[in-house]
Amino acid sequence: MNTKTEILAFISVTVNLFLLCLGILVVQKKGGLPYLIRKALLIKGTHYSAKINSYNSFYYRHRSSQFQILSRSGSSILFLGDSLTDECEWTELFEDPRIRNRGISGDTTDGILARLSQVIKHYPEKIFLMIGINDLLNEGKSPVQISQNYRIILASIQRETPATQVFIQSVLPINNQLYGMPLDSAKVTELNAYLQELAKEFSFSYIDLFTHLSDRQGQLDARYTLDGVHLIGPAYLLWKTAIEKYIDGESH
Amino acid sequence: MNTKTEILAFISVTVNLFLLCLGILVVQKKGGLPYLIRKALLIKGTHYSAKINSYNSFYYRHRSSQFQILSRSGSSILFLGDSLTDECEWTELFEDPRIRNRGISGDTTDGILARLSQVIKHYPEKIFLMIGINDLLNEGKSPVQISQNYRIILASIQRETPATQVFIQSVLPINNQLYGMPLDSAKVTELNAYLQELAKEFSFSYIDLFTHLSDRQGQLDARYTLDGVHLIGPAYLLWKTAIEKYIDGESH
Repeated sequence: MNTKTEILAFISVTVNLFLLCLGILVVQKKGGLPYLIRKALLIKGTHYSAKINSYNSFYYRHRSSQFQILSRSGSSILFLGDSLTDECEWTELFEDPRIRNRGISGDTTDGILARLSQVIKHYPEKIFLMIGINDLLNEGKSPVQISQNYRIILASIQRETPATQVFIQSVLPINNQLYGMPLDSAKVTELNAYLQELAKEFSFSYIDLFTHLSDRQGQLDARYTLDGVHLIGPAYLLWKTAIEKYIDGESH
Repeated sequence: MNTKTEILAFISVTVNLFLLCLGILVVQKKGGLPYLIRKALLIKGTHYSAKINSYNSFYYRHRSSQFQILSRSGSSILFLGDSLTDECEWTELFEDPRIRNRGISGDTTDGILARLSQVIKHYPEKIFLMIGINDLLNEGKSPVQISQNYRIILASIQRETPATQVFIQSVLPINNQLYGMPLDSAKVTELNAYLQELAKEFSFSYIDLFTHLSDRQGQLDARYTLDGVHLIGPAYLLWKTAIEKYIDGESH
């Protein structure tokens, strides 16, 4: 019995040590201590959210550097946002060369703030803005915190390029079943209510896309997504139909 | 001594069981058994590579579905490839509305083959093709295997849309120090040699971008990348300079 227990203990501790080493290796590969700290903060949730900037990836910096070198000439309509904006070929969808894609996958309201000068330098005719879902999903920010960032974004645009018409597009919900990481859809509704108020306050337009793309439970309609967050082609056609009158027309 | 060993064994076995459960949960979340099998095949490397299709992500399917709904009208110049193509605003960079982005991050020669009918349906004026680095990095394919896929791609284009001019752009190296996962740069050189031969064979053009963007060691020049694979704005300006004569001009 004694010997059996000793053998068991030896094997078990060896497995422990092996798994520990494996764990350290994996964490090292994923980015070491800073990675662990970010994960831990994310699990802790909203309290520490103000300290997390999830947007500042290599991808953000590559895209941002590219936006820096693109020409400022000509009349422009900017599509500003995160992956939902980034992934679409807007210029081609609308067959309108004025349209420029200023989406960065993973971007947040903090990310938009950090690159706002690149947006303003265009003195764009119009901006179609959609941002905030990553603030909720990856940073655990509250709708009111996100709306505070929006206020700074909108005020800066209005001050620096007053002729620009801004179209605040409602944040889209996710589909919890498909995405796997649940998000309380009430938060999306709450954020959109703030966005509607802000649009009034700044005399910008609010465009409700939420209704077009969500199901009866307020989830992203499973017909329009495969992963529960991002969109397939027909969803972009719906989006186009919902906003095309604003591309050429008036702001209201 | 006996009791101590028993306590140690108990704690150790409990920790192992806990880690086992955690492991099962993580694997479940990442995609269950198919995920494990793919990972295992990847570690095994080249031998099983023919069975791995790393391209077929949700992102691939979302983008592909979008390409399906975009209009086929008008003269078009397609930029076809992986993330290096996907991440750039080509239409804007060249200020040329004929240019359409047909890049999908993570794509491989298998991925291009699977969506080739979408490319052909445009009967494009020109195609600027860059693909293959993910075959090397994520699938462990050999240069000769990749070149076999290229042969099918090029033959299909030539057969289905014979008026289309194809510009085969050299595969770019990565920067091992920055990327962290080493790739033998001789493989990139070998693949590019095959591409040059194929260009001759099909009477298509080969464009050497490798030389413009690599350092003396044949690595992606650290001045043009932050993560060792993808490109910052000035790199796209160089790319533009290298190919702009082909956008308007002749094929040779």
